[in-house]
Order: sequence, then C-alpha cells, then structure tokens
Amino acid sequence: MAEQVRAIRTRQAILSAAAKIFEEHGYQAATISQILGEAGVTKGALYFHFQSKEDLAQGVLAEQDQHQQLMVPERASKVQEIVDVVMLHAHRLQTDPMVRAGVRLSMDQLAQGLDRSGPFLRWGEVGCTLLERAQAQGELLPHVVVPETADVIVGSFAGIQSMSQAICDYGDLVVRVSALMRHLLPSVVVPSVLASLDLAETRGATVYAEARKAADALELAPAG
Amino acid sequence: MAEQVRAIRTRQAILSAAAKIFEEHGYQAATISQILGEAGVTKGALYFHFQSKEDLAQGVLAEQDQHQQLMVPERASKVQEIVDVVMLHAHRLQTDPMVRAGVRLSMDQLAQGLDRSGPFLRWGEVGCTLLERAQAQGELLPHVVVPETADVIVGSFAGIQSMSQAICDYGDLVVRVSALMRHLLPSVVVPSVLASLDLAETRGATVYAEARKAADALELAPAG
Repeated sequence: MAEQVRAIRTRQAILSAAAKIFEEHGYQAATISQILGEAGVTKGALYFHFQSKEDLAQGVLAEQDQHQQLMVPERASKVQEIVDVVMLHAHRLQTDPMVRAGVRLSMDQLAQGLDRSGPFLRWGEVGCTLLERAQAQGELLPHVVVPETADVIVGSFAGIQSMSQAICDYGDLVVRVSALMRHLLPSVVVPSVLASLDLAETRGATVYAEARKAADALELAPAG
Repeated sequence: MAEQVRAIRTRQAILSAAAKIFEEHGYQAATISQILGEAGVTKGALYFHFQSKEDLAQGVLAEQDQHQQLMVPERASKVQEIVDVVMLHAHRLQTDPMVRAGVRLSMDQLAQGLDRSGPFLRWGEVGCTLLERAQAQGELLPHVVVPETADVIVGSFAGIQSMSQAICDYGDLVVRVSALMRHLLPSVVVPSVLASLDLAETRGATVYAEARKAADALELAPAG
C-alpha cells in the first residue's frame, strides 16, 4: 500500500516536471534529460512510468480531462451541466498549472509527431454524452445534431482560451467564455431552458468550490 | 523601379523561409541562421528587411491578415461579408502555406517573448468594422455588443481551425467553420437576414475564385 502511494507520487512528480519543461521549451525542443533533472527521479523510475517523450506528453494531455469529468456535480438541467463543465475548466485554466500545461500542449500546432487529437476527441465525447442526455429530456432545439454541436463547443472554447492567453495571460478568460456561451446556446437550447441558465462569469469559481467540497468529502469517507 | 521589385521579392523570399522554419522548429527553437540558409540571401539583405527573430515572426503573422482584407468583394449584407471573410480565410488556410504559417505562429502558446496578440486584435478590428456597418443597416439583433461579438467570432474560429488541424490536418475545416457560423449567427443576426445568408461549406472556394479574378483584373489595369 505504501509502495503504491509512493508510485503514484513519483508519477505525479514526473508529470509536473514534464508539464513545466514542455511549457518552457515546447514539445519539439524538450528533452527527457531536462524532465529527469526537473523531477529529481532516476532514469529507471521515469521509464517505469513512461516509455517516451510522446508518452510523457500524452500523460500531461490526459491530466486536463481526467480531473475534470469527476468534479462537476449532477444538475437537473444537462445544459447547465455542460455550462458548468466549461466554466469550471476555464476557472481551472486560470488557476491550475497542470491543466494549463495540458491545454497548451494540445494547442501546440508545432508539435510534430505528437498526436494532439486526444483531448479534442475526449472532450467531444464528454460533450456528446451530456448533449444526448439534454436532448432526451427535451432541452435542445429539434434541429440540433449532437456531435456537431459538441465539436463546435469544444473547438470554439479552445480558441477563446488561446486568444485570452495571447492578449492578457488569461486575465479575462471567464468573461470571454461567458460571452461564448451566450452566443452559442440560443441556437442549441429551447427558450425556457435558456432563460434559467446561470452563465455568469463567476460560475466557474462557484462550481469549483462546490466540487472541491464534494471531492474532499469523498476522500474523507472510508473506502468500501 | 526594378530595384523596388527586387526588394519586394527578397522580402517575400525571406518571409517564406521564416514561415517554413517556424513551422518546422517552432518559434522558440528557430534560429536566424536557419532562416538565412533556407532563404538563400545574405545576412545584410535579411537585416535590411528585419531586425530580429521577433521581427521576422511579426512579418509572418502580418501576412495572414494583410492578404485577407483586400480580397473579399463588398456585399449588400455586411453579415454575409463577415461570413465571406471567415470562409475565405478557412479556404486559404487549407491551401496557402503562408497563411497557415501565420495562423500557427499566432496559436503557438509556447512562443515566449513573442507578442501573439496582434492577429487576434487586428482580426477583432476587422470584425468590429464590419459588424458596426451591419448594425447601422439594421442587420443585428438589438442586444448585440459589437466588440464582444467580434471577439467571440475571432476566438472561436481560432479554436475550430486548431481542432481541425489536430484531428485531420484541415481536411474538414470548411465543414467545421460552416457549423460554427450556423451556431453563432442566430444569436447575432435578425431572422430575415439570417434566412438569406449563404453559409455553405463551398462558400470559401467560391469567394476565393471571385476575389482572385478581381485581384488579377486590378493587377492588369494600368497604374493611375
């Protein structure tokens, strides 16, 4: 058990180091030696967890979605749940270096040989699942094609965050994401649902506090 | 006159070389020597046109918008003109290496020390100008805040192109951009205008052919 905990910690230390090095040098220029130096682990430990530089990058890429999906509490309105996932992600981009590193890597159009499609496809699936539930309970307009709408949300979010980073290092991210939601949702959601949505800029921080509390309660609970 | 033409050609050759090197190595890792080697010009010629690596990158970044604005013919509907600018840009991204390089650089979140905000801000201004004209002639819904909507269009386009590049190297770009327009415009445009818009996936290619013809006619015309 102690060994397992140690292994998880080592893996996290390596991923944090990889995230930092990828952010500093870009995927292309980063080397495994730099990551080793930053993580302060042995070569053997690193290769036990990760086979290659691409493998390390995929680990960092995966961090952004794994954390995410666990954390948004269920909502009666599945459209609100989508908004909450998006707004929480925006909030975490502003505050969590690991989430930030994962997103930057997935936006690194210069990273040759790195398959960056994973996060887009996985986020697309999250979007599809939630939109299908919204559709099933009558929240969506009749013309909506779920995979198309999911991809529009995922793709446009990716660009809005990049623009916010370029212009003011994420200073206005939640404002921009709230504006994006107000622009996209009227063509997707029935008016009665639209009117009841919380699209405020503060939504991400609120959901984060709520989700954090739920996660902490779960960790304190005895394992089954 | 001949000298001026030569200078313009040299500048273009240097920019093309810079675009290629930035795409291959990323902004961070690229060096001026590599660009010199690729362009096949003297150091003196390069420094006559560009002072530094950042200056070269700004030159490549500027290429994507300068070409663009000249080329879309005026439309009676300013919203259609916006759609045409966006669709033409998507088409050129699929077909023009220089436009592609400029966009990739502006999306390079790892390019430290490079101010990538320029293209976002300049595209935002293009959007504002056209949206203001649309607003003046009653094409927009009353609640629209022009700079906000311009930024949503620019930012979301940036992400949609990045997603398309990551998933299939721009193979489905025009399909995705058409879907984006269909999702954004209903919350921006009055219904009667919306119904008359051409948002087809083929729109970019059509506008390109039209604009190319106009540009060629202009070049053939005697200078005033």
